[in-house]
Amino acid sequence: MSGTGDAGAGAGSGAGLSRRPYLLRAMHEWMGDAGFTPHIIVDAARAGVEVPTAYIKDGRIVLNVSLNATQRLQLLNHGIEFDARFAGVVHHVRVPMGAVLGIYARETGEGMVFNEGEPEAPPPGESAAPAAPGAGAKGTMRRAKLTVVK
Amino acid sequence: MSGTGDAGAGAGSGAGLSRRPYLLRAMHEWMGDAGFTPHIIVDAARAGVEVPTAYIKDGRIVLNVSLNATQRLQLLNHGIEFDARFAGVVHHVRVPMGAVLGIYARETGEGMVFNEGEPEAPPPGESAAPAAPGAGAKGTMRRAKLTVVK
Repeated sequence: MSGTGDAGAGAGSGAGLSRRPYLLRAMHEWMGDAGFTPHIIVDAARAGVEVPTAYIKDGRIVLNVSLNATQRLQLLNHGIEFDARFAGVVHHVRVPMGAVLGIYARETGEGMVFNEGEPEAPPPGESAAPAAPGAGAKGTMRRAKLTVVK
Repeated sequence: MSGTGDAGAGAGSGAGLSRRPYLLRAMHEWMGDAGFTPHIIVDAARAGVEVPTAYIKDGRIVLNVSLNATQRLQLLNHGIEFDARFAGVVHHVRVPMGAVLGIYARETGEGMVFNEGEPEAPPPGESAAPAAPGAGAKGTMRRAKLTVVK
């Protein structure tokens, strides 16, 4: 994907539609069903990020986005919004999708990291996934842009 | 994740809950919103697979799982079910989640490959993702089991 991260302004925008919000929602749902506590890692320097600055560390902030820790949580294509208490004080948090660097479960560390720069070419060491064999019955994998996941 | 692929019998089963159906639904939804045609690659030799055998090739079958090409499509945690026409004849298709090897968009080849054997250890060449910096405000990434995605 090209994926500027917040390209998902709506449905039907074709190749420019970022996969990030879809994968983020999937991981969030999986963690919730598994009984884990999802946390997101946010690039606090990105435009549009609204978080309590006291909790920013090295330009990053980690936010508990579990349903228990948040109110009015919205995981939309263009970004995340919720209310949450920080040291007892309720803050409204806004994070554009492009500022979400990853999501992981506090209990296990399992999760997913999104490419920060989102380059067109895969970064060094991330080779193209092997084409799945036998993909010929109804279609062929002409252009492999696949992501291997566990 | 340990991921037997069809471990997702319900909510709350903890660490044994496979991420595969969650990611599959996410990619399916993304492709639908982007105007792409999702196809899945199925290991036809797996127990529980019910597909028209004439379309199996090298032990694999590729199935168009777009909403246009299917009826009563269900992407459940334990597997996929739908009705679809093959050469004009309607077949009922069942694919246990563990038999789903990957999903990709016909138009672009973009998609996601799931590990076939789902080993506990990462396969050779798939190094651990770099820990996201600054993940220290509310939690630390003690055990990195992250997946880098584009």
